[in-house]
Formats: sequence, C-alpha cells, structure tokens
Amino acid sequence: MLEIIRPTLVLDKKVCLRNIERMAKKAAENNLRFRPHFKTHQSAKIGEWFKRFGVEVITVSSVKMAEYFAANGWKDITIAFPVNILEIKNINRLASKIKIGVTVENTEAIRFLSEKVTSPVSVWIKIDTGYNRTGIDANDNTLIDSVVHQISQCPNLNLKGFLTHTGQTYETTSTGEIFNRHFDALLKLKSLKNRHSGLYPKIEISLGDTPSATICTNFAEVDEIRPGNFVFYDVMQQNLGVCSFDDIAVRMVCPVVAKHVSRNEVVIHGGAVHFSKDEVRNTDGKKMYGRIIIIKDGEKVMLDQMNYLSKLSQEHGILKIAQSQMDNFKVGDLVEILPVHSCLTANLMGHYITTEGEFIEMMPRF
Amino acid sequence: MLEIIRPTLVLDKKVCLRNIERMAKKAAENNLRFRPHFKTHQSAKIGEWFKRFGVEVITVSSVKMAEYFAANGWKDITIAFPVNILEIKNINRLASKIKIGVTVENTEAIRFLSEKVTSPVSVWIKIDTGYNRTGIDANDNTLIDSVVHQISQCPNLNLKGFLTHTGQTYETTSTGEIFNRHFDALLKLKSLKNRHSGLYPKIEISLGDTPSATICTNFAEVDEIRPGNFVFYDVMQQNLGVCSFDDIAVRMVCPVVAKHVSRNEVVIHGGAVHFSKDEVRNTDGKKMYGRIIIIKDGEKVMLDQMNYLSKLSQEHGILKIAQSQMDNFKVGDLVEILPVHSCLTANLMGHYITTEGEFIEMMPRF
Repeated sequence: MLEIIRPTLVLDKKVCLRNIERMAKKAAENNLRFRPHFKTHQSAKIGEWFKRFGVEVITVSSVKMAEYFAANGWKDITIAFPVNILEIKNINRLASKIKIGVTVENTEAIRFLSEKVTSPVSVWIKIDTGYNRTGIDANDNTLIDSVVHQISQCPNLNLKGFLTHTGQTYETTSTGEIFNRHFDALLKLKSLKNRHSGLYPKIEISLGDTPSATICTNFAEVDEIRPGNFVFYDVMQQNLGVCSFDDIAVRMVCPVVAKHVSRNEVVIHGGAVHFSKDEVRNTDGKKMYGRIIIIKDGEKVMLDQMNYLSKLSQEHGILKIAQSQMDNFKVGDLVEILPVHSCLTANLMGHYITTEGEFIEMMPRF
Repeated sequence: MLEIIRPTLVLDKKVCLRNIERMAKKAAENNLRFRPHFKTHQSAKIGEWFKRFGVEVITVSSVKMAEYFAANGWKDITIAFPVNILEIKNINRLASKIKIGVTVENTEAIRFLSEKVTSPVSVWIKIDTGYNRTGIDANDNTLIDSVVHQISQCPNLNLKGFLTHTGQTYETTSTGEIFNRHFDALLKLKSLKNRHSGLYPKIEISLGDTPSATICTNFAEVDEIRPGNFVFYDVMQQNLGVCSFDDIAVRMVCPVVAKHVSRNEVVIHGGAVHFSKDEVRNTDGKKMYGRIIIIKDGEKVMLDQMNYLSKLSQEHGILKIAQSQMDNFKVGDLVEILPVHSCLTANLMGHYITTEGEFIEMMPRF
C-alpha cells in the first residue's frame, strides 16, 4: 500500500479508463471523430491509455503542449487556441513532421500564416456560439465569409471547418440548460456548414466541452468532438449534473495538521499551490473548493455537502466540518479531497500516483 | 534583448534587490532578526541575493521546501506551518544536519514530537491573533500554558516563543486598518511574552506578514519578522496601499492572440495555469487579475484601472480595455501584466527570466 505523507494527487486508473472508454464508445456510436483534449491530464503515459480505444488524433491548448505530445509519438494534433503568431517557427517545425491544426479568428492571423507557413497546416475557424471568450460571432457572416475565402486562397492552409467551445454549458444550473445551450450552438454551426458546404463540401464541425459531450445525444452533422475534462471529471462536473462522484478519477490526499473545534474547522496541508482556486457554490451559499472522503471503521466514506474544503491559502486548506463529524478527524490523519477543477489541480501537481502506486509524469513546466 | 514568444515571468532584479535591501535595513534599524519567508520566490539563486544583506536564517512553508533550501546551503530554517507529523522522518533527517524550527498549535503534535524527535528542534507556538486560519487563540491561556509546559518537559524540544501570521492585514480597506490590526496582534503577543518571560526569559515573538512589515513602525518587543511577498510585491499589495507599482518586481509577459472590438476585449495567451486565480476587486466592482503595461511609441505605459485582466480560463486571459485604448493592441503584440498574487504566479511558472535575460530556476514540483 502506498505511503502518503504529503499532499499527493492520486489517480484511479480503472475509473479513468472507464471514462475514456465511455466517451470513445459514444463518439463511435454517433459517427464522430474523437479528438480528445489532452490539456487536462498533460501526460504522455495517460495519452497511451487512449490508444487502446482507437484514439489517434488529439487536441492541445498550446504550441508547447503540441511539441510535448508530438515528441511522444502523436502525429495529428489540433492546437485549439487562437493561433499565437509569435510561435510561427515552432508551428512550422511541427507542421514539417506531423499533421498540425491551428485555430484562427481574425484576418490578421490568416494573413500572417498565409505569408509565413512553410508546410501544409489545417485551419479551423473559431466560432463564438455564445460563450463570448474567443471566436467570431456565429452570426457575423461578413467576417466569416471573408475568413473562409482568405484561407482558401493560400495553398498551404487547408480549411477544415468551424470549431467551437460551448463553454456556456458550464454557466448552467440544470442539465436541461446544458441541452438547450448545446442545441443552440449546434444550430448555429449547422447553419454555417450549410452556407459553405456548396463551395467546400468537406467542411466540418468540431465541438468541444465535456458537459455536452457527456450528456447530450444530438450530434447531427457534427464531425468531431474534443472534450478533455471527462478523463478525470471533478466536483464542478458533478455539481452541473454531468457526472456522479464515482466518475471522478482523481483526488488529492492531504494530511490533517490541526483541528479548531470552536469553529468546526480542520486544517490540512493542501492549499492553492495544490488545488488552484476554482470554486463552486456550496448548498449553504459559500465558496467550496472540494468534497471530502474519510476512512471510518476501515471504510471510505464520502461526507455530505455540509463538510467541504472551504478556504485555501498558499499551503493551507480549511475544511468546514459538521459538528457531528468533528470526532472523525485527528491530527496525522489523511483525508481525500475531490477537487473542484481537476485540470488546474493536475497542472499544479505535475504528476500522479495511481491507486496501484504507479508514478505518472506530466509535461514539464518549461 | 530577450525574445519572448510565450507567457513568460520576467523578474526585474534591480527592483527585487531594492525590496530585499529595504526590508533588511528596516529589520536592522528595529533590532529585529530578519528571517524572510522563501515561499514567494522558491529559488536557490534568489535566496543567494539575500545573503548580500546579511540574511542567514529563513522561513519556509513545507518540509519539502526546507529540504530544498537545506540542500542549497541554508543552515537555519523555520517551517512556519502546523507541523505535519507524518513527515517526522524527514524532520529528523533535517534536524540532524541543520537548525530546524517547527510550529505547533496542539498537544497531539507536541506529544508526538516529544516521543519521536531524535535531534534538537526549535519549537514555535503558533498563535492566532485574529486571522482565524491556524494557531491557538491568543486569549486561550489555559491551552497556551499547557503547551508551553509540555514543550519545556522534552529535552529535544527548545521552546522559542510565539509566532503569528497577521493575515488579517490583507482583509483591510485602508492602511490605517493595517496599523490597527498589527498593533492589536502586537499587544496580544506582548501580553503572552510577559506572562511567560519569568520562567522563560529568552522567549521570543515572531511576526509574519508583508503589509505590516512594510508599512508599520512599532515593533516594540518583537524579536523576529518573517515577511515573504515583499521580495516581489504584487497588485494585491499595491491595492492595499502597501507598495507602489514601481516596487513590483515581477510581470507576466503575454502574447496578444485576438481582439474583440465589439466588447472592448483583448485575448492573451496567459491563463489560470500562468497567473493562478487570486483576484482583487477593481474600482468598477469587477474581479481583477492583473494590471496592464503596454509599449507605446517605444515607451512603457502603465494603463489606468479601466484596463485590466478581467477573466482567466486554463490558458486564456481576457483583458478589459477602455475603448480609447483598443487601437494600442494588435495581434502579435506582447503585453506586460502585473500579477495580483506573485507567490502563486511564480509557483505556477517554475522559473524566471530576468530583464537581463538570465534564467532562474525554482524548486522542482516533486
């Protein structure tokens, strides 16, 4: 059995493999190309697990991450982030060796790529279907038409189609809203596909987010999905109604270092440098950074929502604990915390220990 | 000149050295032992810079960090975090080689240390002066007396005194409040010192936070200060009135990847995996993650508070920009962002590039 003495990110490989298998199966059943986003796990070894389920093409969020996975044998990578033209040398180097897809959303970037790209590159047009983070507004046909035309004029730029991240599915309070927002995004993209498929019959739609990829069922005319978080899920997804606690494949194991009985608090070694600071609102209206699992009479027990990780400073975490549970915590115990946002937690920790004790590395920081 | 193409943490060494010099001088003028907290920079090389100003003793926030700095030649280290008894083997190994101080706040930890410590260890009693994160309530004389007595009974535990982190100075809206909270903490600690100095004439007071260490002037009967953040400062400290923008020694340099003129937004490569997600409230009542410096006509210009880093997802940052400034941003530009919380930003980036182009490593993640 694994001896843990410090904050440690533990990965349940069985749950992780089940998450991958389910999503791969769902993609296959819906005739979707499965291009999972690897920004969540950032690990060559976990990447290998996807190959068992037929995955050969992936998504990443930076050129650096594309370089890491290319160096680990991946041959077809989409960088789903507005292309950073300062990285043109690195993009060209990658594109000379493997299939690289980039994402554009303005004429400046396309003009730049047209002049500087030295090998064929796939180009996705980033469409904003309502998240209002990046992309061209789905209704801005003037700009989209112009961008499509510009790409088609450059021999080294292969127009792939329209790509969106329906991040607005995260800003919902019911799964019904996730369905509605996914459907709305789908309608917008289908309309764009229809508008351009006359001239470009191979033009595609690529969708991104874990909430809709997990629970929605209508993917008519979609060609590709790019979910990432589903590989681990987390409390944010559980809170949205997207997964159950049993689907969450990672947990932070943290030592108890102090108890404050007068205010029903337990202090753990496990802070913002381990969890990051993404939060959800707990049922009591307070900020919540994670849910708690303890060992009681030799069994793992998931505590209810009155017990949660309530504050984080650099290395400290404060657990708010129901009075009736305080006796279940003592200095020197280990507690398991299900993180609110597994992508940011994994990014901070930089490695995993599986429940079987295997050490799994991630992409180095630099 | 340094060529930057990706989010990069740039350190102005001159400003950093000035920050260290000022604090060292202030400590000397007030007859305080200067035991800076190294959790902010986490770097052996930056640690060396402190030696020019006579620093020989330091503070860290974990056993791991103590191991790192011990391996880099530091011989007197306080671990200012409630002692994690699961790390006893590592604490013993360190204590057999160098002077180690630990922090306790309950009888369980002291009982455990009494039985397991194999070399002399300095022990600080963590006192809660009002931050309500960790420590024994400053008014709980029963518990404090018992802890003092327990420590004195064990030959390997050397009672050092009372240690606090006046983190409540961060929860203020004026520098006057910082003065008041520092003074209140000071009164509580002086009262404890007086209570116990009869039996323990060498008992000490150690204070921690950057806001009070920077601006307060009354350190009567204080023996030691342990500020950390002052080495870089950040927008949070500037916002509290503790430092000026010119004192902030680090900035994230980030590429502009998109502009959204219709909503006065600029998208940068620079997200939660670069900045972390600590925030301050901007003057417009919105969350603010950093302030912006641009190059205009070859000169650096700090934009006013109507221009700021307003949203962060994993790799994306959204700048909210005053309409009159939008023309000053174009795709492919680099912008400088002063981070809200330099400790967490540095921890994520894992290294620095100085303005002179020198690469500075930090403690590895594991």
